[in-house]
Amino acid sequence: MTTTGQQLFTTLTADGKLTLEVSEESFPEPTGNQVLVKMEAAPINPSDLAILTSAADFDNAEYSPGKVVAQMPEPFLSGQKSRHGQRLPAGNEGAGTVVATGDNDMAKALMGQRVACVPGNAFSQYAIADAMMCLPLGDHSSEVGASSFVNPMTALGFVENAKMDGQKAIVHTAAASNLGQMLIKICQEDGIELVNIVRKTEHVEMLRGIGAKYVVNSSDDDFMEQLRTAIDESDAFYGFDPIGGGQAVDNVFKAMEQVAVSKMTEYSRYGSNQAKRMFIYGRLDFGPTILTPSYGFGWTLSGWLLTPFLANAGMETVVKMRTRVQQNLTTTFASSYKAKVNLEEMLTKEAISDYRQMKTGEKYLVTPWG
Amino acid sequence: MTTTGQQLFTTLTADGKLTLEVSEESFPEPTGNQVLVKMEAAPINPSDLAILTSAADFDNAEYSPGKVVAQMPEPFLSGQKSRHGQRLPAGNEGAGTVVATGDNDMAKALMGQRVACVPGNAFSQYAIADAMMCLPLGDHSSEVGASSFVNPMTALGFVENAKMDGQKAIVHTAAASNLGQMLIKICQEDGIELVNIVRKTEHVEMLRGIGAKYVVNSSDDDFMEQLRTAIDESDAFYGFDPIGGGQAVDNVFKAMEQVAVSKMTEYSRYGSNQAKRMFIYGRLDFGPTILTPSYGFGWTLSGWLLTPFLANAGMETVVKMRTRVQQNLTTTFASSYKAKVNLEEMLTKEAISDYRQMKTGEKYLVTPWG
Repeated sequence: MTTTGQQLFTTLTADGKLTLEVSEESFPEPTGNQVLVKMEAAPINPSDLAILTSAADFDNAEYSPGKVVAQMPEPFLSGQKSRHGQRLPAGNEGAGTVVATGDNDMAKALMGQRVACVPGNAFSQYAIADAMMCLPLGDHSSEVGASSFVNPMTALGFVENAKMDGQKAIVHTAAASNLGQMLIKICQEDGIELVNIVRKTEHVEMLRGIGAKYVVNSSDDDFMEQLRTAIDESDAFYGFDPIGGGQAVDNVFKAMEQVAVSKMTEYSRYGSNQAKRMFIYGRLDFGPTILTPSYGFGWTLSGWLLTPFLANAGMETVVKMRTRVQQNLTTTFASSYKAKVNLEEMLTKEAISDYRQMKTGEKYLVTPWG
Repeated sequence: MTTTGQQLFTTLTADGKLTLEVSEESFPEPTGNQVLVKMEAAPINPSDLAILTSAADFDNAEYSPGKVVAQMPEPFLSGQKSRHGQRLPAGNEGAGTVVATGDNDMAKALMGQRVACVPGNAFSQYAIADAMMCLPLGDHSSEVGASSFVNPMTALGFVENAKMDGQKAIVHTAAASNLGQMLIKICQEDGIELVNIVRKTEHVEMLRGIGAKYVVNSSDDDFMEQLRTAIDESDAFYGFDPIGGGQAVDNVFKAMEQVAVSKMTEYSRYGSNQAKRMFIYGRLDFGPTILTPSYGFGWTLSGWLLTPFLANAGMETVVKMRTRVQQNLTTTFASSYKAKVNLEEMLTKEAISDYRQMKTGEKYLVTPWG
């Protein structure tokens, strides 16, 4: 028996044309530990936008029902050379109902259940998923469970990573995001100090409202002073940044070093001995990362991705993290959405222009049967 | 008994005036494990220039015998706020003859010997040094031994660090330097592959002449292709950069990622899983470090300094490294100098304008009694 349904694809060709298209596809019968999920809800995460919209010109794109063709500028066209010509599925995560399973017991046990999953083609009416990575949602709706992997596991991953590195405090930039709010709650639960950097006054109030102790506003004139004070009080020399481009990380390193230097009794041309560590985990800003020579040599900056982190953390830690998400899906790990769109609506100019901005608190949910 | 002699000092005041000055100083009697060294030779290293010249305007400075006053521009003036008003000694390392010692046996055993040392005020006719850090030079002259700490231990440190991290290949930028040439010899001796990046055709030939296998020229049109080929053949995803500013590191990360991606069978929006690691250990370029978003998230960039590395490496490793330097001072670890200057000559417009450029193969040696 073959199942058919709509699925979204993204194709970038060498001439710079990025095509997003909904088409009717056949889905194979699941085998072994696979399950076939009728997808009911999938969030559009920033990590999805990397292959959906990237830096393409959607203001001047050609729109037709279920299809859009936009031009990709350089250097982003060449930078994605290895995907040229490939028709890629999209959508990291989502939730739906298991309608068929492979022969393995773990898969069979999920038959008929509502599950969250990470199929990689969640922007689709059906998806094949690995039973091992499925999270049974019980009485929760697919909408409640749609975002139960990427943001929750990333936020938990930061705290696990900090603990592994012996840290008791974290700096987080662009902290008003859905993920940022989860991180605030996790840090409260685990007794980790958290310095939240936001860009708007209303976000300062929002984060204070959910109990954040340190919230600094990068739009304020005395931002650097606020940041130094928060770092000094929290002892946070370790942090995570989803912005990537510009000087978000640079500012944090500067403030960390200034706090450390203020405690030194003797001048050193090499800066302080305080180890400073930052991770870039996203690209809200596609511009280059700028690091000024103003914090000595005691710093380390890395990219951070969930999948290799989970691979390193080991199965026991991952299972512990998954269980914690499952048990707190409507509290610590709750997500909210600005709008719901089906696959065709997802490809309208209005929708793309809005969700590609990745504004705080304005996440879209794709409901493929809506 | 008090010894007096000439010593160089560098003072930066809050109004932006950088004063370099030779003055007559008194040196105390050494106590405990200290020795008093009559300094005979000291190299001007890039790390010394950080407090000697930094970014000050020496073209329009006021010069008088044994003194120069130059203006320090922003942001370098504010960036060095914690040294404002402090009269600092200069000169990391040098060599000379022990003329007095403290009471400890280790110190007393050095009486009358020629030693290399790391006093921090090597641009001086006398310096107090720690006997533990002194390297007896035997029959070698002070000129031969003057540079036996910073460059040799740094080059050895890179290889030790690579081995600790399980690496068998290294990329080195600005590789034609004195340190770069030492690194080539060390890597040959230790069976580590080394990709040397230089900026001039004559440097390609020079490094090939001392047996370097991979030398790529960043001034060539096909630089990136040369670099990819060398990385691919050597399997070097780990490296060291003394430039700091600009895109030297960015280019290396790009080439590493392109090599890794070329071996992937499936496209990933997150880039390759190949871990890429670079260290910045100097600031030949004071500009900001530019990192473009073109090599995924599997990269780590750190500052690298010798002192914390040695502290982490432990006494046994450090002693092993010191012994290796001592035994190969005129071969692997030989240094050469463009010019010799005494303390007054060091502060002339001609000398400063020349040595502050840190040109490859044009290092200055200070001979305080010359």
